[in-house]
Amino acid sequence: MPAPTPVFFDCDTGIDDALALGYLLRSPAVDLVGIGTVSGNTDAAQAAINTLDLLAIAGASGIPVAIGSHHHLAQDYHGGAAHVHGDNGIGGLELPRSDRRPDDRTAVQLLLDLSHEYAGALQVVAVGPLTNIALALQADPTLPTRVAGFTVMGGACLSPGNVTPAAEANIYNDPEAAAVAFAAEWDAALVPLDVTMAHTLEEDDQRALAASDDPLAQVLATMLDHYMEFYRPIFGRRTCALHDPLAAVIAAGEIGLTSAPRVPLEVDTTHGPSRGATIADLRGIWRGLGDSSRGGVRIVREVDRPVVRILLDTILG
Amino acid sequence: MPAPTPVFFDCDTGIDDALALGYLLRSPAVDLVGIGTVSGNTDAAQAAINTLDLLAIAGASGIPVAIGSHHHLAQDYHGGAAHVHGDNGIGGLELPRSDRRPDDRTAVQLLLDLSHEYAGALQVVAVGPLTNIALALQADPTLPTRVAGFTVMGGACLSPGNVTPAAEANIYNDPEAAAVAFAAEWDAALVPLDVTMAHTLEEDDQRALAASDDPLAQVLATMLDHYMEFYRPIFGRRTCALHDPLAAVIAAGEIGLTSAPRVPLEVDTTHGPSRGATIADLRGIWRGLGDSSRGGVRIVREVDRPVVRILLDTILG
Repeated sequence: MPAPTPVFFDCDTGIDDALALGYLLRSPAVDLVGIGTVSGNTDAAQAAINTLDLLAIAGASGIPVAIGSHHHLAQDYHGGAAHVHGDNGIGGLELPRSDRRPDDRTAVQLLLDLSHEYAGALQVVAVGPLTNIALALQADPTLPTRVAGFTVMGGACLSPGNVTPAAEANIYNDPEAAAVAFAAEWDAALVPLDVTMAHTLEEDDQRALAASDDPLAQVLATMLDHYMEFYRPIFGRRTCALHDPLAAVIAAGEIGLTSAPRVPLEVDTTHGPSRGATIADLRGIWRGLGDSSRGGVRIVREVDRPVVRILLDTILG
Repeated sequence: MPAPTPVFFDCDTGIDDALALGYLLRSPAVDLVGIGTVSGNTDAAQAAINTLDLLAIAGASGIPVAIGSHHHLAQDYHGGAAHVHGDNGIGGLELPRSDRRPDDRTAVQLLLDLSHEYAGALQVVAVGPLTNIALALQADPTLPTRVAGFTVMGGACLSPGNVTPAAEANIYNDPEAAAVAFAAEWDAALVPLDVTMAHTLEEDDQRALAASDDPLAQVLATMLDHYMEFYRPIFGRRTCALHDPLAAVIAAGEIGLTSAPRVPLEVDTTHGPSRGATIADLRGIWRGLGDSSRGGVRIVREVDRPVVRILLDTILG
């Protein structure tokens, strides 16, 4: 069995962030070495509280959690997505409070430190706005040389957006940061709505989590209530999309990518109707998409299994 | 049998425009009452020459052809798409020159005149940049009240663009005009690359046209050589997309629309990477798309038959 992959997880916890966190904590393929938080689903400080509380419930006391950027590169934090993730980011659920404090470092500093400690091996998984990532690149442009892979949940390529007809929330919340992050020269993969909206967690799956005697699985099942109600009118049934868990499982290499062409990617940073859109050059689609000779970002369009099975098998053990 | 539908055809002839013209001339469902030209595939004056020459070959001498806008609302004509449609718009083919001259009116005036003559019944089919249409709306904002339907070949919604990763050529060539055209209150339908790229004409079809003793079918078969070579690297085989014919057949009501939700549509008129993108609000896709309560434009996503069969059956009789 290969050594577990060291992962830095940048998140805005968030209900599907919490599911991804559960996966990253429990997967034998992953060594979760640090967590940064950013404002998005909730604010960066609340995301750190949620993350520390979840780590305590999971019995994972040694992983540093560093608070990242409250505001975004070119715009202020908008106040979160309470209608999606609840007032506190985790469906309004009041978790037992962890006695750990956040790391004294910023999320940017923690990421840079870990990139040296795990140079050449570190996988960066970002499932919120890319503010921390952009600031880390601006602070140290050599960061990509020490990172093995950069996986982002975000964007919508040949899919409608969610917060606007053209844009997905993570990218829309900080398009300028996304433009910086995808302009850097590293092995970057985008996991957009195109593929994440095809991966849902159903009521049976929620019940399986709830029926576990594992406290982490139980709190995840409980907070899913809020998330699944949000998705009811979107899917026409009570379910939810597994955005962030899919990105985590892809970064860990535990799912096969059946369509993930590497193509040029541009982020729309105008203030027009496409602000926050991820413009991937997918014009090869009519002859069958391959990698572009001009490099770019891998656009994950299809994976080989339902991620919900991997997620539940890993969390429930 | 119902009376044929009076159609005004606004075009930039163009090889697939020529195919659409052949269909509109020959379909018993259509009464082609006037043609306007606009710069796009070629310039507006050359498009008028091509159109008159094709009408002469088809033996259709009574249909007025009016030259429209050479330049676009906010940008100059870029010089055409010789790599797609040949130096003269019709694959370099030298047609016998018609002895008819263009109508003395502008395309805008011809459209406005016909909208009165056929008030309540006129179908406007636009398969080039929407410059003439926007100018007609600006000259007479009551135009939509006299038009039964407005069908546009253009745009890319959940499809890659063609001239840029985000934009299709007709809309990209005059985004400001497209924004005007789709803001007007009429029964508008967009026929984007999403559906047109799924409708091709194959080598067997070209041979069927060439084998006809009809001179129009023969010249269409000949000019297709250039167009099919352009598409060879795009599709990975010698074929071509039936963009403009699909819009014409839809406007004539001779094909069923199996997915054509009416949703809000915005055109990107910024100068960012999404310039010319058609931003349709298709966020209902995950529960099954229906018409939006907020009105908008019908986005044709799927039709019930291969348009190539209707096209060939109509032209070959």
